[in-house]
Amino acid sequence: MKQNKTYQPQWIDYPPPKGSYRSIFKYGDPEAFKHPTPELIALLKKELKLSDKEINLQPNLGLEKVSHSGPIGLTPEQVDAISKIVGHQNVSTHFFDRVRFSTGKTLEEAWRLRNKNVDKVTDLVVHPQNKEQIARLIAFCDEQRIPVYTYGGGTSVTLGLTPERGGVTVVLSTHTNRFLELNEQNQTVRVQAGIMGPQLEHQLNYAPAYFGTKYAYTCGHFPQSFEYSTIGGWFVTLGSGQESSYYGDAADNVLAIEVITPRGTIKTIDFPAAATGPNLLDLFKGSEGTLGIVVELTWKIHRYMPENRQYFSFIFPSWDNAVQATREISQGEFGMPSVMRISDTDETKFAFNLYGIDKPVFNKILSLKGLNPGQRSLFIGTANGEGNFAQNIKHQVKKIAHRLGATYITGYPAKKWEKGRFRDPYLREDLMDMGIQIDTLETSVRWDNIMEVHHNVKDFVSSHPRTIVMSHASHFYKNGTNLYFIFLTKEKDLDRYIKFHRSIIDIIVKSGGSPSHHHGIGCLMVPWLEQYLGTEQLQALRAIKKYFDPNNIMNPGVLGL
Amino acid sequence: MKQNKTYQPQWIDYPPPKGSYRSIFKYGDPEAFKHPTPELIALLKKELKLSDKEINLQPNLGLEKVSHSGPIGLTPEQVDAISKIVGHQNVSTHFFDRVRFSTGKTLEEAWRLRNKNVDKVTDLVVHPQNKEQIARLIAFCDEQRIPVYTYGGGTSVTLGLTPERGGVTVVLSTHTNRFLELNEQNQTVRVQAGIMGPQLEHQLNYAPAYFGTKYAYTCGHFPQSFEYSTIGGWFVTLGSGQESSYYGDAADNVLAIEVITPRGTIKTIDFPAAATGPNLLDLFKGSEGTLGIVVELTWKIHRYMPENRQYFSFIFPSWDNAVQATREISQGEFGMPSVMRISDTDETKFAFNLYGIDKPVFNKILSLKGLNPGQRSLFIGTANGEGNFAQNIKHQVKKIAHRLGATYITGYPAKKWEKGRFRDPYLREDLMDMGIQIDTLETSVRWDNIMEVHHNVKDFVSSHPRTIVMSHASHFYKNGTNLYFIFLTKEKDLDRYIKFHRSIIDIIVKSGGSPSHHHGIGCLMVPWLEQYLGTEQLQALRAIKKYFDPNNIMNPGVLGL
Repeated sequence: MKQNKTYQPQWIDYPPPKGSYRSIFKYGDPEAFKHPTPELIALLKKELKLSDKEINLQPNLGLEKVSHSGPIGLTPEQVDAISKIVGHQNVSTHFFDRVRFSTGKTLEEAWRLRNKNVDKVTDLVVHPQNKEQIARLIAFCDEQRIPVYTYGGGTSVTLGLTPERGGVTVVLSTHTNRFLELNEQNQTVRVQAGIMGPQLEHQLNYAPAYFGTKYAYTCGHFPQSFEYSTIGGWFVTLGSGQESSYYGDAADNVLAIEVITPRGTIKTIDFPAAATGPNLLDLFKGSEGTLGIVVELTWKIHRYMPENRQYFSFIFPSWDNAVQATREISQGEFGMPSVMRISDTDETKFAFNLYGIDKPVFNKILSLKGLNPGQRSLFIGTANGEGNFAQNIKHQVKKIAHRLGATYITGYPAKKWEKGRFRDPYLREDLMDMGIQIDTLETSVRWDNIMEVHHNVKDFVSSHPRTIVMSHASHFYKNGTNLYFIFLTKEKDLDRYIKFHRSIIDIIVKSGGSPSHHHGIGCLMVPWLEQYLGTEQLQALRAIKKYFDPNNIMNPGVLGL
Repeated sequence: MKQNKTYQPQWIDYPPPKGSYRSIFKYGDPEAFKHPTPELIALLKKELKLSDKEINLQPNLGLEKVSHSGPIGLTPEQVDAISKIVGHQNVSTHFFDRVRFSTGKTLEEAWRLRNKNVDKVTDLVVHPQNKEQIARLIAFCDEQRIPVYTYGGGTSVTLGLTPERGGVTVVLSTHTNRFLELNEQNQTVRVQAGIMGPQLEHQLNYAPAYFGTKYAYTCGHFPQSFEYSTIGGWFVTLGSGQESSYYGDAADNVLAIEVITPRGTIKTIDFPAAATGPNLLDLFKGSEGTLGIVVELTWKIHRYMPENRQYFSFIFPSWDNAVQATREISQGEFGMPSVMRISDTDETKFAFNLYGIDKPVFNKILSLKGLNPGQRSLFIGTANGEGNFAQNIKHQVKKIAHRLGATYITGYPAKKWEKGRFRDPYLREDLMDMGIQIDTLETSVRWDNIMEVHHNVKDFVSSHPRTIVMSHASHFYKNGTNLYFIFLTKEKDLDRYIKFHRSIIDIIVKSGGSPSHHHGIGCLMVPWLEQYLGTEQLQALRAIKKYFDPNNIMNPGVLGL
């Protein structure tokens, strides 16, 4: 592909002004950026049929200060009582704070803020200092019928932080973010729910220095939001990390929790397994703050041995063959790779571009092997664990890949992906700055319906004008995987965009996928939940909600309970 | 140890008379026996200080026909209505049947039957033909407030089948025991809840012949009761198989269920993972029939490659070292062995006897290596999976074992154990015939409390007169394992025995173990559940029960809900 050396927009590469709309919707570190490369812009121009004029900066950059203000739906007495519980310095009625902690990371929330549209805003932001304060706060709010929303790291992409009915937003990551205990015998840590990925992982990687342990450890959970999400959030939204195929999904690593509900506090027990009736821990997996606030977790840790890590990448002749390979690997009984990521033909095209491997010589070699653009499929992977174990995984993966017509292209693309894996969210603000909307939707599939879901969604989305859709599978199980769809569209109207977005979810669920594999339900996916679960299950969930939260104060709106 | 060639009892080696008490409490196949060897009798005589006279057959052999009869607590109209639902040939009011299907496999139930004591008896035994009949039956019983008990294979050792309040016992293994579907792409099977281990496993091992699949499969779940227990029972009691360290516990292999409750039918969805709120499937793990009857299950199957199986056995210088080895293996990140079984010093003594390795020359060699009787600890294991994977596990296990002072003693003891692994329950009737009570209790432990629980229980039980207690750990997780206690005692009085038995449970729970690792709660463990879970959790379970079963007709008494 020839590079299209044309006009490049002048990216915003300074931190958003303090108090601005942009400072709320900008991802992650205010000083961090990942601007689209000229090659990517050229590719987008071609695929989205953009003229130079159309890739100019748009007017709605959100650089203005949040200028609205709004009344508080709580009485001064209520605010005062809450201030007394958590300390006056730990509550805020400042409008900027109220907007900030009411906002997650969906595209539509960013878009609304760019339009200076602040729709549903919490009344009071509260930063409790400990679990005792949280218990008193919930008891008070229950008595006063004040809704309580929970804010961890703020990376929800399902409108999970939207204060549907106003009330109080409890921020867990300000104070209740401590590493409490490492138990090397049991290979567990006990942490407060608000601890973020890097703080946890750093202490585990350097555990011998911090805690005098024999070995170094890892938490094993690396979602794309790793740097800005909390362990409590990982658990209650049923998150999956990029290495989940080996380490398990978030909830698989949680051995016990302490959770505060309007009905009281529950502490579950950290045995590996016990046949002592239904384990209430399970009920809080995916509860998304609707039953109570999880304040402490016992998390299973794993030996950290980066020296054993194996990297591998392949080009498959087709998406079908790549899917079949990952199925055979997942069912092969030789241990699981940590990362597997197969890109469909459209994503492969972009990945070649992003990893800088879209070179004429390389393409020629691949074509000679029958691995043609528009058909070929990229597979990247890593394996962890003890040395022989990881090497054998790579060996077995290679055997299966070769049998299915793949060409091994070294560990380079896998390493390149790993290096940038937490950076991609930064791309969005730049793309939106020039009026290109980039968004994602994802779903669980079984091996026997992956092709149908993939085909239906791709077909539907790509029929939309000036829209690109690509997909990968990245979390693997014996009986299936997930599909992660990324789509880019040149769209100027938010309402039209939302209609389009919702119709994609509709296609996913109608095709037999789940409304989510690891993003969760939030308020966004509620309209599809009954269709997916059936009325009987939703009624049962409502009955459970009614028990723990009889006055419906915990995250009302979320999960539609 | 010298063999004590003395008088041997004349074991009963004919099937129990039809309609007899013995035909109810005898384990498994009526024509199968596993008589104690002369060497075992000699060892027991020594350890329990038994005279020849004391190992004679006792009077209460249960050979008499069940002679009682009892009134039926249902009206003729109710019996008639139920007969109409399931067909007249599928109900029984015959007293023998009523006793049989009210009885599990605890020692005390066998003892009561030997004493011709039939305490709590169901009113009607029902063998439904399909799930539609089960739905109609539950609806009718709910309307009429008739208690419903569920009987799978009948191997409960927790009084899980006791009809606390009379009513109807639903037997799932008579008709609803079918293999419904094998999906090779997803590696799943869909089966009726009443299918038994061997029927399931046989069809999986020979799947290429039965279903034309590419590969052979295994269910991966092999509890000691494998031959006589049902897949539904495995799931609802949170069972663990002997190869659970590799294949997972029963519930880990269940991807979806269909369950009929008084509140209606729930079908959960068989995705590998979905972030769509709490998964109701989890609630039925450990529900033990108290919320409804699980009628169908989707079970994860695994490639069957017995040609790759590795066997290994070691003698460790101490129980402590054996525990440390299994911990290091479980945390070693090289994949898990299928079987690991470490015997404490007392069990090692019996294992040497049972496996026929208690030979002078062998003992001398071991003693020269510092592996002395009374200190040494036996470890047996197997590894499954792809060839290199299984070999590497054996290799890594050996490395860890040698570092901890163990001597490798070939795969022979592991093979010997595997061959006889489903036969041990047959020993009990012989031992009881001569007045020796043999029973088991088991618990979950973490690595940081295994020694305390082990020490406290051993200390307490062995202080009881004429009692032997031995223990092993056999299910392994990163953060802990289980302890399985086997105790033998010369005791003639049932009430005194029960008091002793309950006091062991008390010690287990007080020492910080769970009331069960894989046997479940049934009616037996109810008195310890609140102490273990706490009031808040028990109240929440009761609220859930109340929703699904508002009239408390499902297994009343079980779980204490």
